Amino acid sequence: MSVPGTFRITARAGRARAGVLETAHGPVETPVFMPVGTQATVKAMASEDVEALGARILLGNTYHLALRPGAERIAALGGLHRFMSWPHAILTDSGGFQVFSLRDLRKVDDDGVTFNSHLDGSPQRLTPERAMQIQALLGSDIAMAFDECPPSDAPRPTIEAAMARTSRWARRCLATTPAPGQLRFGIGQGGVHVDLRRAHLAELRELPFDGYALGGLGVGEAPDVMHGVIAEVAEDMPAERPRYLMGVGTPSDIWRAIGAGIDMFDCVMPTRNARNGQLFTKAGKLNISNTRYRDENVPVEEGCPCPCCARYTRAYLAHLFHAKELLFHRLATAHNLTHYLSLARRAREAIAAGSFPPAPW
Amino acid sequence: MSVPGTFRITARAGRARAGVLETAHGPVETPVFMPVGTQATVKAMASEDVEALGARILLGNTYHLALRPGAERIAALGGLHRFMSWPHAILTDSGGFQVFSLRDLRKVDDDGVTFNSHLDGSPQRLTPERAMQIQALLGSDIAMAFDECPPSDAPRPTIEAAMARTSRWARRCLATTPAPGQLRFGIGQGGVHVDLRRAHLAELRELPFDGYALGGLGVGEAPDVMHGVIAEVAEDMPAERPRYLMGVGTPSDIWRAIGAGIDMFDCVMPTRNARNGQLFTKAGKLNISNTRYRDENVPVEEGCPCPCCARYTRAYLAHLFHAKELLFHRLATAHNLTHYLSLARRAREAIAAGSFPPAPW
Repeated sequence: MSVPGTFRITARAGRARAGVLETAHGPVETPVFMPVGTQATVKAMASEDVEALGARILLGNTYHLALRPGAERIAALGGLHRFMSWPHAILTDSGGFQVFSLRDLRKVDDDGVTFNSHLDGSPQRLTPERAMQIQALLGSDIAMAFDECPPSDAPRPTIEAAMARTSRWARRCLATTPAPGQLRFGIGQGGVHVDLRRAHLAELRELPFDGYALGGLGVGEAPDVMHGVIAEVAEDMPAERPRYLMGVGTPSDIWRAIGAGIDMFDCVMPTRNARNGQLFTKAGKLNISNTRYRDENVPVEEGCPCPCCARYTRAYLAHLFHAKELLFHRLATAHNLTHYLSLARRAREAIAAGSFPPAPW
Repeated sequence: MSVPGTFRITARAGRARAGVLETAHGPVETPVFMPVGTQATVKAMASEDVEALGARILLGNTYHLALRPGAERIAALGGLHRFMSWPHAILTDSGGFQVFSLRDLRKVDDDGVTFNSHLDGSPQRLTPERAMQIQALLGSDIAMAFDECPPSDAPRPTIEAAMARTSRWARRCLATTPAPGQLRFGIGQGGVHVDLRRAHLAELRELPFDGYALGGLGVGEAPDVMHGVIAEVAEDMPAERPRYLMGVGTPSDIWRAIGAGIDMFDCVMPTRNARNGQLFTKAGKLNISNTRYRDENVPVEEGCPCPCCARYTRAYLAHLFHAKELLFHRLATAHNLTHYLSLARRAREAIAAGSFPPAPW
């Protein structure tokens, strides 16, 4: 068994890289899309479904799991992998993004963040130490450092202050004890300011993280602005460590970021949009609520290998959607996740073949 | 391939019978429990799931499917089997039970029933001819005759009038053209009055139905009253044809009715109760909302072969239930359907072994 944290780059095409990251729950081929399993389930899917789609790493949410069912409870039950019956890798976020999204419900000080639970309003506190302890209790394979994520439209001094605090918190995160084999990734901030991004990554690079992430992108800025920043700063992240772009984005966003040298992605878009009736296809998005689909006796996407397209038609999906049947969510989610997972697989194949074309979108 | 409608009794134990009913979509072993797929889906389950649980016949609802997505639409899409991707047998009810449940929204005359759609209030009409036409368009394997189902507390003359109308309608149903290979079952009424039940079954027995059902039971009367009626009248149904007790009931109800000579059952209880958090086990019902299950690191039922118990714990199910995650419905439904399907299988095995014990409940 390989040592968790080993990251082997197997091919390059321009700035795009393909590689394999070893974790305590098996290897992860990159570029990789990680389905989001916020509350210990990828919404509408069983673990065996996600496994059958070919996913080998999921994202879990520290904030949500700590509030319900509780990190200590999950630990007592044998950890997050066993709890949700997922034998492959799990990355947990730190909760930072969630608590900083609770704009009116939180109070930040240099030690941590006090906030009110969105479930029952109860007072809660996250510090770098507690965020890492929760992730150690969950037993994830990759723990993210606890960061301060400023709003996308924050003034430059606010962003600089958040960067400084994130750096201090990064050191405190690294001083905690991880779960056995657990990797730790640092998160760079800096808004859309390339100079700040570079300065922050230069600081974090000095710390012994197993991987590096870009936080605070895809949070409201224009896509071209985001991609401009990514293109400028991706190579400021250590070349020999995995690079993770948090929470982004559309298929086009992911393809472009792979071209800039990013390795890892997560986003709720395939799963959330599925539940709202929006299906991704190579020919563009298809909104199943459109009445014409009620009579279309063909799969969502001809040739798609997903369990939805293998067996069911647009007409049936449209019926399930209009009738508010639970099965709709699962079939649509399976299709959209297949779209995202296939995108990452095609990227790996293109890089292995030595040529990474621009996004066709 | 055997002729649809062939019913071969393979074993008897007391009044209980085991047999095989041939349909245009394969053989159905009896006694059988038919999962309810009201809107062309067993709620929360994909067709492949229901198939994997071992079910070989489902129930579909004429009333719901005619309103949405529409019988002509399903016919144009290739019929109900293809629409929902279910390769095995389907029984459709006639819509009678549903329209007679719309007490304030319907008007009955001797030709049929006028009612308002529960979806949009639009005026609708069902007659015996239209109910059979819808079922022919759906292409079900077993079509139920359109009957008048009086309330359980109706006075005797009301029940007698409903019986007479149901007999007239039964003849009109049989005068229509079925789908190729489609079987037709008649429905006996008579409330809880054994003499009326016998008289009605004597009338229906003269008509060339492929099977016979008891309607209007399990609609509010006490269980012992219901079982008293079943025990008295089951053998008034032709011995050489399948006998179907509509819409009943608890595991104990089904076991007792099998002992009285009934062959076929459907009920929403396993699926509906699952979605409300009530799980059936051999040791009794388990309500997953009970806080103690949040820490129980064991399956819902030790030794249960269902996909829920094979992989997930009570603690995980309790979490999914409290977090209102979609996956809960599917896992709970798979478990409860397994309970009902296993009950029918155990009944078949007991009868084949020549001994059918009383219900252990």
